[in-house]
Amino acid sequence: MKVALLGGGVVGSQVASLLQAGTADFAARSGEQLELVGVAVRDASRVRPGIPSELLTDDPAALVARGDLDIVVEVMGGIEPARELILSAIKHGASVVTANKALMATHGAELTEAADNAGVDLFYEASVAGAIPLLRPLRESLAGDKVRRVLGIVNGTTNYMLTKMDEQDASYDEVLAEAQRLGYAEADPTADVGGADSAAKAAIIATLAFHTNVTIDDVYCEGITAVTKADISAAREMGFVIKLLAVAEMTQDEAGVVVRVHPAMVPRTHPLASVRDAFNAVFVEAESAGEMMFYGRGAGGAPTASAVLGDLVAAARNRFGQTRSHRPEPYAAIGPRPIAQARTRYAVAIEVEDRPGVLAAIATTFADNGVSIQAVRQDGVDDGARLNVRTHVATEANLSDTVEALRVLDGVNRVAGVTRVEGVTAS
Amino acid sequence: MKVALLGGGVVGSQVASLLQAGTADFAARSGEQLELVGVAVRDASRVRPGIPSELLTDDPAALVARGDLDIVVEVMGGIEPARELILSAIKHGASVVTANKALMATHGAELTEAADNAGVDLFYEASVAGAIPLLRPLRESLAGDKVRRVLGIVNGTTNYMLTKMDEQDASYDEVLAEAQRLGYAEADPTADVGGADSAAKAAIIATLAFHTNVTIDDVYCEGITAVTKADISAAREMGFVIKLLAVAEMTQDEAGVVVRVHPAMVPRTHPLASVRDAFNAVFVEAESAGEMMFYGRGAGGAPTASAVLGDLVAAARNRFGQTRSHRPEPYAAIGPRPIAQARTRYAVAIEVEDRPGVLAAIATTFADNGVSIQAVRQDGVDDGARLNVRTHVATEANLSDTVEALRVLDGVNRVAGVTRVEGVTAS
Repeated sequence: MKVALLGGGVVGSQVASLLQAGTADFAARSGEQLELVGVAVRDASRVRPGIPSELLTDDPAALVARGDLDIVVEVMGGIEPARELILSAIKHGASVVTANKALMATHGAELTEAADNAGVDLFYEASVAGAIPLLRPLRESLAGDKVRRVLGIVNGTTNYMLTKMDEQDASYDEVLAEAQRLGYAEADPTADVGGADSAAKAAIIATLAFHTNVTIDDVYCEGITAVTKADISAAREMGFVIKLLAVAEMTQDEAGVVVRVHPAMVPRTHPLASVRDAFNAVFVEAESAGEMMFYGRGAGGAPTASAVLGDLVAAARNRFGQTRSHRPEPYAAIGPRPIAQARTRYAVAIEVEDRPGVLAAIATTFADNGVSIQAVRQDGVDDGARLNVRTHVATEANLSDTVEALRVLDGVNRVAGVTRVEGVTAS
Repeated sequence: MKVALLGGGVVGSQVASLLQAGTADFAARSGEQLELVGVAVRDASRVRPGIPSELLTDDPAALVARGDLDIVVEVMGGIEPARELILSAIKHGASVVTANKALMATHGAELTEAADNAGVDLFYEASVAGAIPLLRPLRESLAGDKVRRVLGIVNGTTNYMLTKMDEQDASYDEVLAEAQRLGYAEADPTADVGGADSAAKAAIIATLAFHTNVTIDDVYCEGITAVTKADISAAREMGFVIKLLAVAEMTQDEAGVVVRVHPAMVPRTHPLASVRDAFNAVFVEAESAGEMMFYGRGAGGAPTASAVLGDLVAAARNRFGQTRSHRPEPYAAIGPRPIAQARTRYAVAIEVEDRPGVLAAIATTFADNGVSIQAVRQDGVDDGARLNVRTHVATEANLSDTVEALRVLDGVNRVAGVTRVEGVTAS
């Protein structure tokens, strides 16, 4: 069985060397020998550890169009030319394994359709949460259940940073510098800290969990750049930890799904709270199965290669058995909904004048806008007071209206912050 | 597509009612309508909620031999007649979904072989860790990786009991009575507290994780009946928690696998330590993927039904697509090995005379038998002292020899307890 690899970076090299080291094992697992016949890289003259130089080519288009390939593994990343190459591979009859979250979150429906029409497999387990088997359980194991909500920590860089801010009482800038020094964050960390990486993964998760089509453009996205040391210690005092969450949740009428990425307060007793450092975890709530969590390494060459090779063996087995896996069907008549329809709990920090009547006016403002208060805590600050209000479940629309009204309320100096609260079981 | 159900108990009723409530959804997920055509129960005259009475029969042998069944779901439990009925269902061309851990742990190879020869699917996700998708990830997602070790909390009853003993400083008898009152433990709790339930699941996990054949008879098994309040508080003082673990581990020469069930000390910082109450979790260490954990509800009607229905949809999709899943291949030339070849860390409690030279003699005894000491703690007791010795990694054989030698050593009153220690990363 002939395998071609697009991309010779960290993941590509790992895949190539594991594939060649475990030839006999892969034959036993797949039913047939897997032979790496070509690796497309940018510079074919550079020596790459683990990849025989005669396999290197700088012409990926010619490689995928050979016509005799069984499986193409794409680990080059980016939208183009990855999309064109995958479509060409599919057209030429190959099954495809990809780790490309940006591509799947943008053109997933097109690629799924193309693979289906051509009768080949398209697998992308490595695109979300690295080595953690997540997409296959969502596609298959939970196929007889109804997922209600998914809460994921799917970006290792930001989880590492938030963990250090919490553990070392450090500032955002300090932990970012440390993360960059240790290689956990890139020189330009925008995709991680801005939330786009998590948003792509959230779109893929939502598509599979809710049997629909969600793209990255449907995902509400806030990163962690505005999270301060003060936010983290305020959360700690209330028994919470701040995590960057990818949330995909069915609306109350079960007719839509809201997908959002933002920092959220999570109770310290919640299983997600103990997911530290660069680890990833995805917490799933399903109607019959109840609560589940999948935990593991979300990134890195070897973990990502493990997921890619799992997909590769699955594709090879199918090919050997002249079959293919059931495609994820977007059969559910539920589409993406705007953030305004999200329903969750909130922590609202309000700086107020320290005089009688202000709390009453604030409480009335929440009530008038349909938001029910669960708890209020007042701390003295320099020239006034700071109220920490925690709400019961409310819609994002009602909460926005509340904040608008608070901003112009007499006695309110400033709405200092709004943080969503997830993973609280009692309402 | 015609589905028959063997067993109308808690799980069976859930499966029947979910199947009938979600008819349209199942059709969309499977590609075709799923019709429940018969339910075999002991007493067909009894009314069962969620099961139309005209579907009930007390003749399971006739039901599975109808000849027009597509899928048979077995949730009756026990070895016979479940084994005979499944073999008959397979012979008559039906795919089989079972939740029967005892059967799979005893006759798994025979049933897998029969299904393979007949060209049908045999799925049993619900047999281990209830709703947690575990077997499919082991079979498929990790197919390109090499599993080194699996540590599982796979019995909810004992985990509930050990959690309460730890949290409430209660005795074994107290928590057993409480668990029985709450329905977490059966009137005869032997299968849970004696470890047999965990051992069956360990055999199934080891078979899939290591691509071999392990039966329940190959599993070393110690239950929790000897765990005392004192053991739990001694563990707590050392920063550990006691869990009943199912451990499946490759031997050092990578030529065998040792599978064992016993109480073990786990560091409080390990992800398994925070698995409380009746929850289950399985921690997997793989060569490339690193550490992973799967967490969720291990038992109960709805969670088990969720896993059964996931398998049912997978079997239906395959049938609709005229294909079937790759069978788990026992291709690896590694077989089960005796407990003597296990390698782990130990905590050994020794009651000694409080006089000079005893510690030196004990340390020499450990060293002479090839066991390296990591830490020693001495507590005064009534008429002597109690030593808590924690070792580095040693073989079970060497540890046994050490204990034998300690028992006859001058100055040693009693070897009060030996507990294995798992989940410590530094050696």
